[in-house]
This record gives sequence, structure tokens and C-alpha cells, in this order.
Amino acid sequence: MASMDELKKAAGVRAADMIKDGMIVGLGTGSTAAHMVNRLAERIKTEGIHVTGVSTSWSTTLQCRSLGIPLKEMGEVSHLDMVIDGADEIDPNRNLIKGRGAAHLLEKIVASMTDNYVIIADSGKAVQQLGTKFAVPLEIIPGAIAVVTERVKKLGGEVKVRMGAPGKDGPVISDSGNLIADAKFAPIADPDKLARDLEHIVGIVGHGLFINMATKVILADEAKGLIEF
Amino acid sequence: MASMDELKKAAGVRAADMIKDGMIVGLGTGSTAAHMVNRLAERIKTEGIHVTGVSTSWSTTLQCRSLGIPLKEMGEVSHLDMVIDGADEIDPNRNLIKGRGAAHLLEKIVASMTDNYVIIADSGKAVQQLGTKFAVPLEIIPGAIAVVTERVKKLGGEVKVRMGAPGKDGPVISDSGNLIADAKFAPIADPDKLARDLEHIVGIVGHGLFINMATKVILADEAKGLIEF
Repeated sequence: MASMDELKKAAGVRAADMIKDGMIVGLGTGSTAAHMVNRLAERIKTEGIHVTGVSTSWSTTLQCRSLGIPLKEMGEVSHLDMVIDGADEIDPNRNLIKGRGAAHLLEKIVASMTDNYVIIADSGKAVQQLGTKFAVPLEIIPGAIAVVTERVKKLGGEVKVRMGAPGKDGPVISDSGNLIADAKFAPIADPDKLARDLEHIVGIVGHGLFINMATKVILADEAKGLIEF
Repeated sequence: MASMDELKKAAGVRAADMIKDGMIVGLGTGSTAAHMVNRLAERIKTEGIHVTGVSTSWSTTLQCRSLGIPLKEMGEVSHLDMVIDGADEIDPNRNLIKGRGAAHLLEKIVASMTDNYVIIADSGKAVQQLGTKFAVPLEIIPGAIAVVTERVKKLGGEVKVRMGAPGKDGPVISDSGNLIADAKFAPIADPDKLARDLEHIVGIVGHGLFINMATKVILADEAKGLIEF
């Protein structure tokens, strides 16, 4: 029986193998994305393909540097040939919840640069309705935390500031210097509407609902192997 | 004939005189708001009223400290009794463009905490349609500048990163650490729609359109004195 980590690796390898010579590719953050980045580095070394990455976090930047994957700054580019990333929940319409790793804002900026957005995960991340297991991660301007908490409550969500980042006392701070919080809703009937309602709240810099963005999902399943949709 | 500065001062004094003993008040940023803050300090000293301020910028915080106005942190409060601020353009429906001072994000967070949002300005700020004279200020995550520029172009706007802050080489950086840019549109037919379209662009942290927020406008006019609507 394949372990969770073997499943994640299989999905990461499959996605990295979709990258073509000459592409500029957005590289996601998280344990599954890390496998994809490792495999990309291996292909660059063994096949000699030329691929430039755009990283979505300090974590991925450091990994790419240590593996020798050439990077472009996010702010230099407005279009990417492909973006590959993980997700925390995936519904049948390829809508996502992301942000357990607090990198969802930069991940979403990068995802918005492509028409070819590939999500890799183990099949445990598939849900019928978003919000079933996970809260919606929010990135919030620190000075807006009290008013945003009130506003999100009116939308039916319970906001909890994320605490206890390992190696960092106090609340989790994003790569952009903002607070990360999690908003627990009941399973979300209309994720597109909730996304727009959240965007309209002043002080929310980003949220973890990725609606109509992913174009392909690759799930690694213990029993069925790789599932694509 | 009253000078521009005398007009601004008249509007600022009028608004400061609306503040009542015991209130918690959001204090805006800019030259007109500065007059209001000065007058509030005078009232606290001479009338002995107890008023706590919530500041919208470093600039206003420093002014309040030097004048002895007690402040609460923005993140501590979710409701304010009144908010007083300036604006760069004001339409007949009290919709606004703000942000020439690059403080519009924190100003909007504070404005979202009240049902009593008073705008003070000279009558030159009144326009029939927003976007007539000013561009729409944007606050943008630095890594998103290229893709945001593309997206705003599709909405009909020309984005220019704001440069040359006095005392700061290079682009203007907001109090939250983001880039400030100005998006020039033709006069804006439907500002509510444009506001929501901008909010949906990933990487825009805030924009200077304040729609359905102001509840009172006080304009100081050379010929007519104070105009309220």
C-alpha cells in the first residue's frame, strides 16, 4: 500500500513531467509541490531542458536555489506557460481551498498569470463541497483584524487568528507581512459568491478560495493510482 | 477672498465641532484632516472633553502624539462613533476617490468601522463624475505589479507606479509595505462596478474608490461658505 508521501510524490512527478522545454512555470508551495520541484530539478539536470521558475513563497525560492532551478521575480512577469501547485480541498468543479501553508496570496497572484493551472494532491483532498473539512484561510492587514472578524461573522464565518508558527512566537505572519487567520464556515454552498463577498471586505488582502482558476487536477489515489479531471 | 488653506481649515473646524464628549473617532490623513485634528486637540484642552482617536496613518499618529490626543490601535476596535477624513474627488452621491496621500487602505479600514463617516474638503474637490481629474490610487503587492497592470488595462485603466516620494528614493511604499500606483480611467460611469472589478483582481490590496461609505460631506467654498450634503 502506497504511503501518503508516495502518493504525493506520484502526483508531483506526473505534473513535473508535463513541463516542456522553454517554459516559464509558476512553482507552488507545500509538501506535494516540493516533490514536483524536486522532479523538475532532476529533469533539468538529466534532460538538459531549459525551464525558468517563478516561486510563490520563500520556502519554494530556497528550495529552487538549493537545487539550481533558475528563477524570475514574480513582479517581472504577467504571463506564465504553466503553474503547478497543491491544494487543501478540491471540489468536482476544480474550485479549491488553499492556504494551510499561509502562502495562498502569492500562490493566487502566480495562478492568475496562466491559463494552464495544474493542481496536484492526494485523493483525500477531494470533497463534494468546499469547506467540508477546512476553514478558509484569510490574509488580513493587522490593523483590520477586529473589524474583519465582525464582517466575516455576518457572512457566517468564525475567524481565528492562526497561532504558533514553529520558530515564531505569536501569530503566523505571511510573506507579505500580514496576519493569517482561518474562517470556519459550514460547507460552502456558493463559493463564487463567498469569494466576492470576502473580497469586498476592506482589510482582507487575500483569501484561500480559488474559484474558476484550476484547469487540471491530478489526484494520487491508493487504490486507483492517478486520477485526472 | 479666503485662501485654499483657510477654506480647508473652515471645513476641518466644522467637523471637529461635531465630535461629542466620550466618542471614539477615526482620524483621517491629509492637509484638511490635519486642521480637524488640530481643532480637536484644542477642544480637548479648552473644553475638557474626553475623545479617543484611531489614526489612519503614521502621519496622523505623529500629529496626535505631539498634540496629546489619546489614541487606540486600529486593530483593537471594530466600531467607531464617527470618522472624519478628506477626499480628492467627491461626486453628488457622496462616492469618493481618495489616496493622493497613499493612506487610502488604512483610511478605508477605519471608514468601514462607522455609520457616521464625515468628509471635509474644499469645493474644488466636487465633481459630477469620479475620475474626472484624478486617477484611482491602488495599493498593490509588489510581486503582482506586472499582472495587475495587465488586468487593470483590460478594465480600461492605465497603471503608473507612483514615484518620487520626498525623502524616499524609488517608488512610494505604503504604511503596509506595498506599492502605490495610480490607475487613470476615463470619467467613471459606474464606480460601484469598477470598485468590485478591482477587488476581484488578485494582488490589489486596496483601491481609492470609496463607494456608499460617506454619510455627510462638508465643502468649504470661497463664495458660498460651508456647503453640506
